Amino acid sequence: MLYDLTVVQFSKMLNNLNHILDKAEAFAALKKVDMAVLLNSRLAPDQFNLIRQVQIACDTAKIGVARLTGNMDTVPKHDDSETTLAELRQRIASVLKYLEGFSEADFGHADKVHVSQPRWEGKYLTGYEFAIEHAVPNIYFHITTAYAILRHNGVEVGKKDYLGAMPYKVPVL
Amino acid sequence: MLYDLTVVQFSKMLNNLNHILDKAEAFAALKKVDMAVLLNSRLAPDQFNLIRQVQIACDTAKIGVARLTGNMDTVPKHDDSETTLAELRQRIASVLKYLEGFSEADFGHADKVHVSQPRWEGKYLTGYEFAIEHAVPNIYFHITTAYAILRHNGVEVGKKDYLGAMPYKVPVL
Repeated sequence: MLYDLTVVQFSKMLNNLNHILDKAEAFAALKKVDMAVLLNSRLAPDQFNLIRQVQIACDTAKIGVARLTGNMDTVPKHDDSETTLAELRQRIASVLKYLEGFSEADFGHADKVHVSQPRWEGKYLTGYEFAIEHAVPNIYFHITTAYAILRHNGVEVGKKDYLGAMPYKVPVL
Repeated sequence: MLYDLTVVQFSKMLNNLNHILDKAEAFAALKKVDMAVLLNSRLAPDQFNLIRQVQIACDTAKIGVARLTGNMDTVPKHDDSETTLAELRQRIASVLKYLEGFSEADFGHADKVHVSQPRWEGKYLTGYEFAIEHAVPNIYFHITTAYAILRHNGVEVGKKDYLGAMPYKVPVL
């Protein structure tokens, strides 16, 4: 379950984010606006800009999965130096490729593993708690905030761009 | 698992939303701004305002849980007539009370139940897909959007207000 909730769904959401960024790029071209204007936009002066929202969404995905599966030593490193859309796309692609390397079998102990972060001063959450109460709300927060920054700037994104395709099934009558 | 992902976590997030609205109310009082200004704010002219974001977050929680557990006949009805903060709080409280009535045992078939909505034209998702790919991303979307509208208007909300308290544990040495 945690595999589907993280690896599978985080990958889907990062692909949706890519698609939202495609729409932003098309909007910038149409309006003859430098894409850097959108990438550096934010909704409040002390809020992270769009670049940082994308970076943190990527980090939430890669670090969340690495912690749940005990793979912090192999997690890809990024130095947060992206300034262009092309560089952000590379970062997303790098995380998507990393996530592809995991399977359900890697999550055998994920529920019970102790997850900690430096700022938690030695305290921990179980993997189950970490996934449901921390990693999942966080990735949606940053992708929605990226979406909201673009929406506020006039990019025509809608809920379907955020949610992505659904695996709808037709009932057998 | 779906019980924790929906009933437990949705309840936590609706309480966090309440807390964020408390901060908005304090901000409005401090700035001598009518709370209605914040409640009717949005980030784009064709986006739902804060009132509607709260309403949809509530609906995502109540309807999501009702569909997963086969209880659409008992789901509390709300006619979307809220215009004040007090009324929005009543709606949140009503959904929290509804969620309290569920236990893990109600989710015995939730993974496999067929979930549909009128606009899906007869197609369905399994409960498992619906929870992970639809209900969960949706509730975080609307709560983050409510947060973003307030953040944009100057309310001092931060990530901790959104995530809420974590069940941190101290390691036994």
